[in-house]
Amino acid sequence: MSGNELEGYSGAAKELLQKTGAGVWSIVKVKTLKGDFEGIVLPRNKFAAPGFLEIKMKNGYNMGIEVNENTTIEIIGKQEAKYQIPEKKFPKDPKKPNVMLLGTGGTVASRLDYTTGGVIPAFTPGELFSSVPELANVCNLDTEIVFKIFSEDMQPQYWGQLASKVAEASKKKYKGVIIGHGTDTMSFTAAALSFMLPNLSIPVVLVGSQRSSDRPSSDAAPNLIHAAQLAARAPFAEVVVSMLGSPSHTYGLAHRGTRVRKMHSSVRHTFRTIGDLPLAKVDGDEITIIKKDYRPRSNKPTTADTKLEEKVGLVYAYPGVNPAIFDFYINNGYKGLVLAGTGLGHFPHRCFPKIKEANDAGITLVMSLQTLWGFTGMDVYETGREEQAIGIIPGGSMLPEVATVKLMWVLGHEKDPEKIRTLLQTNIAGEMLAGEPPNGFLVLQGVEPGIDGVLKPR
Amino acid sequence: MSGNELEGYSGAAKELLQKTGAGVWSIVKVKTLKGDFEGIVLPRNKFAAPGFLEIKMKNGYNMGIEVNENTTIEIIGKQEAKYQIPEKKFPKDPKKPNVMLLGTGGTVASRLDYTTGGVIPAFTPGELFSSVPELANVCNLDTEIVFKIFSEDMQPQYWGQLASKVAEASKKKYKGVIIGHGTDTMSFTAAALSFMLPNLSIPVVLVGSQRSSDRPSSDAAPNLIHAAQLAARAPFAEVVVSMLGSPSHTYGLAHRGTRVRKMHSSVRHTFRTIGDLPLAKVDGDEITIIKKDYRPRSNKPTTADTKLEEKVGLVYAYPGVNPAIFDFYINNGYKGLVLAGTGLGHFPHRCFPKIKEANDAGITLVMSLQTLWGFTGMDVYETGREEQAIGIIPGGSMLPEVATVKLMWVLGHEKDPEKIRTLLQTNIAGEMLAGEPPNGFLVLQGVEPGIDGVLKPR
Repeated sequence: MSGNELEGYSGAAKELLQKTGAGVWSIVKVKTLKGDFEGIVLPRNKFAAPGFLEIKMKNGYNMGIEVNENTTIEIIGKQEAKYQIPEKKFPKDPKKPNVMLLGTGGTVASRLDYTTGGVIPAFTPGELFSSVPELANVCNLDTEIVFKIFSEDMQPQYWGQLASKVAEASKKKYKGVIIGHGTDTMSFTAAALSFMLPNLSIPVVLVGSQRSSDRPSSDAAPNLIHAAQLAARAPFAEVVVSMLGSPSHTYGLAHRGTRVRKMHSSVRHTFRTIGDLPLAKVDGDEITIIKKDYRPRSNKPTTADTKLEEKVGLVYAYPGVNPAIFDFYINNGYKGLVLAGTGLGHFPHRCFPKIKEANDAGITLVMSLQTLWGFTGMDVYETGREEQAIGIIPGGSMLPEVATVKLMWVLGHEKDPEKIRTLLQTNIAGEMLAGEPPNGFLVLQGVEPGIDGVLKPR
Repeated sequence: MSGNELEGYSGAAKELLQKTGAGVWSIVKVKTLKGDFEGIVLPRNKFAAPGFLEIKMKNGYNMGIEVNENTTIEIIGKQEAKYQIPEKKFPKDPKKPNVMLLGTGGTVASRLDYTTGGVIPAFTPGELFSSVPELANVCNLDTEIVFKIFSEDMQPQYWGQLASKVAEASKKKYKGVIIGHGTDTMSFTAAALSFMLPNLSIPVVLVGSQRSSDRPSSDAAPNLIHAAQLAARAPFAEVVVSMLGSPSHTYGLAHRGTRVRKMHSSVRHTFRTIGDLPLAKVDGDEITIIKKDYRPRSNKPTTADTKLEEKVGLVYAYPGVNPAIFDFYINNGYKGLVLAGTGLGHFPHRCFPKIKEANDAGITLVMSLQTLWGFTGMDVYETGREEQAIGIIPGGSMLPEVATVKLMWVLGHEKDPEKIRTLLQTNIAGEMLAGEPPNGFLVLQGVEPGIDGVLKPR
């Protein structure tokens, strides 16, 4: 085992590994005062906590063990570094629609994390067929890895790469595109692609999983099947996020890419459409359209319009927010700022002089809501009217994250302040609601039956 | 009319007012090409949009009219500058509990905004009895204005003033305290008071309204009555937010001050308990306790522990976030930073060197979730473990805003890093959940019946 492969190991953990001759990919039994643990020694990043040994256990969980003088290691084997999912030939059927699956990293289709400990997409059609054979009933699948990054490391420059790949695929034989994506920033990418593909002709379905595919509770397989159904057969040509839709995990929902948000750290139905109903529901091979106002599939060519201005910031209001934060953005040459205000779109008055300075420095300012639901109402109170007077543009119902992505895209296309304002206040890709459906606001599950019922004391 | 009172007026609007002799508080008929409007000329702030005339119309709405060469004004009267709600003597009953209502500004009990155009609390027990006579059936009410600010201008220094007033009231005859508060930052104040009143002996109920009391749809009266019921009779000694609980507006909910968030810009049931069920429900004179784990009323003295460290920032992760933002906080002497991460609590790896610098500079770093629901899970993936290695403290289920308030309070009390870490990871005032109830996550109202039903296409 080369020293380089022990890079993330230090202190007692590194000493123990070196003393016993164990290294990354060794299968070991670790004895500690808290019990014995069996697993594969995993590679670690240089930022990893010092003194810990990290193993992948049989149940699929990674475990960090703090090594002390009572810790011993026994080597019981060695994992092949290139473990492979048994690969079967994906049975292609000329009568079935062709679907392209683009990989970006993330938990979906990550069977290989058994050996890497990371969440790395590594899938061929054959591997996927071996893992999720139902896919072959839906479509002919081709796959391509576009890049491999952690979802949290997503950057605006990657969005354009994906948009271009979608445009390419749409010009070939593909009836739809699936994008495997980590869930952390999936909604940001969905929003970006919604703006970057203004004349999209096929469905683009972002999909991931909240639980690794090596765990029994994984949602990877149903999510992939739902995504394949939507990509192959949905009547809409829109960018959607498709993940499980309810706690019972019987069906999937397709959320419009500009209205979706990850709303729970860990449940599988974490993605929710905010302020509206989801675009569609998918249950087995049944696709139910909920929003009839979708853009239909077409035969027109899809083009990718990927220009972005990346100097766009996002600032939340809170009691105690420092007005000098606007100096940071002014001094660093920012071109746009999304404000996430309180209530109907309010920032503290004491920030106004600095906000006005930012506006005078040519920074485009857009107000969004930290309530997430609702609309800016900047004509209702004096504060909102004053904010408009110092240059803040009301963002309507745009979610703060979506407004950030849209502002990057708009500033990549326009320099004229009036054209920028007009574009920002125009609904381009479903990001601005005309109104909310009566059942578009969140309720507490304890309220039943229906929306006006009685809370059950527990 | 002095020039000073026309301060917020400029351009054509100011000229028109001066030409016709109209001023602030004049009742005018304004004729424009778009129609005629009757109302009271309102004072404006110096930041107000130039060229506009602002009037309060009979329906209670304010309106900004852009003045041009086709605009004329006819003076038809003058509003008394000191309009008063007809004041009736609040009938006190020695058998009824005494309740103190503290005013801070905000929309509740704001009948006087008819003349000011602002949202200014101006209420005596007599005015309130005249407006909401039902209050006298519940309690004997005393009132005190602590300060008058817009909710969005709330600052940490005001929280301590309120906490001290509550402690004072609890030592007198009062069975409970109501705090009238604008809804924008109500949840921040509720969280701050929860930490600042560690041995609270009576209920503290924050209440406001989403619609001014001069509008027919106002929630001011039911909210005040529910708040009075809770302050006078609830068995718990906790800080809660009480606002309407459902779209039908038949009942109120009491949300624990450290778990509540404003989730809609404008609906009246905007406040929601996040990740848990509300503490209680109030319907007429019936108070139903939903969470049995409340702190009961007591006869022990309530003390206010108001020390705060205000140099605490809040940073959201997004693709494109600039790692240099951490330099701003380091260079400005910040003591604490709450990070609102993606997923289980993740920031981009490219921010890690700067985050580590912040930690090395003595800044306490706490991770919270932009999903709002759920728990940090920083042992699950490598990213989270690396984040802990560079000093980030997992914030569990603490909401980003609540973590910000708590960090201010904790850093006001402790300088030792280990004690700070321990306090941050200890549940002090209900801010950290042990788990989530099965019905604690948001659902879409379209899902029915119950939580696993079918979405109704619209």
